[in-house]
Amino acid sequence: MITLYKYTHPSRAETVIWALQELGLEYETKEIDGKKGEQRSPEFLAVNPFGKIPTITHEGKHFTESLAIIEYLNELHPDKPLTPNTADENFAEKNYKLRQVISFGMIEIESYLWILTKIKVLDNYENWPEGTANNCMKCIQKALPIAYAWVDEQEYIAGDSFTLADIYYQHLFSWLKMLGVALPEQVQDYLKKLSKREKFPKR
Amino acid sequence: MITLYKYTHPSRAETVIWALQELGLEYETKEIDGKKGEQRSPEFLAVNPFGKIPTITHEGKHFTESLAIIEYLNELHPDKPLTPNTADENFAEKNYKLRQVISFGMIEIESYLWILTKIKVLDNYENWPEGTANNCMKCIQKALPIAYAWVDEQEYIAGDSFTLADIYYQHLFSWLKMLGVALPEQVQDYLKKLSKREKFPKR
Repeated sequence: MITLYKYTHPSRAETVIWALQELGLEYETKEIDGKKGEQRSPEFLAVNPFGKIPTITHEGKHFTESLAIIEYLNELHPDKPLTPNTADENFAEKNYKLRQVISFGMIEIESYLWILTKIKVLDNYENWPEGTANNCMKCIQKALPIAYAWVDEQEYIAGDSFTLADIYYQHLFSWLKMLGVALPEQVQDYLKKLSKREKFPKR
Repeated sequence: MITLYKYTHPSRAETVIWALQELGLEYETKEIDGKKGEQRSPEFLAVNPFGKIPTITHEGKHFTESLAIIEYLNELHPDKPLTPNTADENFAEKNYKLRQVISFGMIEIESYLWILTKIKVLDNYENWPEGTANNCMKCIQKALPIAYAWVDEQEYIAGDSFTLADIYYQHLFSWLKMLGVALPEQVQDYLKKLSKREKFPKR
């Protein structure tokens, strides 16, 4: 059995739920109350010493980092549907594209978005200096046109088929929207298309 | 032919050179002078619109994001020696570990390290507020013990064999050292072991 540790509030754990549903895997969830600081309880730290959500357990082992968890779950499926097919003659290029968009998203967008969230949403709990949020937003705005162009150019963010990169970018774009970033029409359409997938989690 | 665009000064491009050498691939390099702003020249922006180094070209196509480039190069080799063997019965777990350590390194370490570098090394060219560097260093220091434990537990950062995650962490740890972070003994030993590899670039 796969057990997913998720926050009671929406978080990156939703990306793992979506992947679990796309893959048709059975799972149970355990809710961690972030407001009560349950992610720092001795029980949860025994599962994930860094106290990060989401975490899954499977066959007595634990797995962390949402994208790495999704890669693991994908490998449990005989067809590995969330990554390019290794038998495809263009595999090297398709796999590159997947890795490129994810790497770019993490370093050029998510890293600043995470600091911005700590400041704006989590009550600046790390006491970032005044003005840091502005700098973060500028860096994000510099990177976004590149990601928007990918949405424009292709059916899915990393090419012509749905991959775990779409699960990642759906979350990233929704997160940006939540923080007040106005997304262009093609990105709104892309999000709409993804939300119409049969296995997209109903919230 | 593979053409690697690298800075005249040491940069992340060195990780691609190391991968090229581990893989025994032939390549040529084109030097971009960062001090002259050549990464923003129309010629280079035609190759990589985001002006990021490293970039490679191969068979008329261009590839960016160092780790994604290394994944691409690895696929050009019949044995794909820089990632776990897909025929291995523990592939799912080994591949997970590789993805986990890279994802963690990018979000919990590299993201803050990059801002820190912009402030301390690149003369704060984005005008980050006073104090931001301190917050970045605190976040890095919080994450590092997790990475140190991986070095302690295993022969290589993602398990018992050398992978592209070692190329990534060699760069990450060296970068931290350059910024004055005192690395524990096991990490120094790990760096020494990596630098003794036959294909490690002589600088």
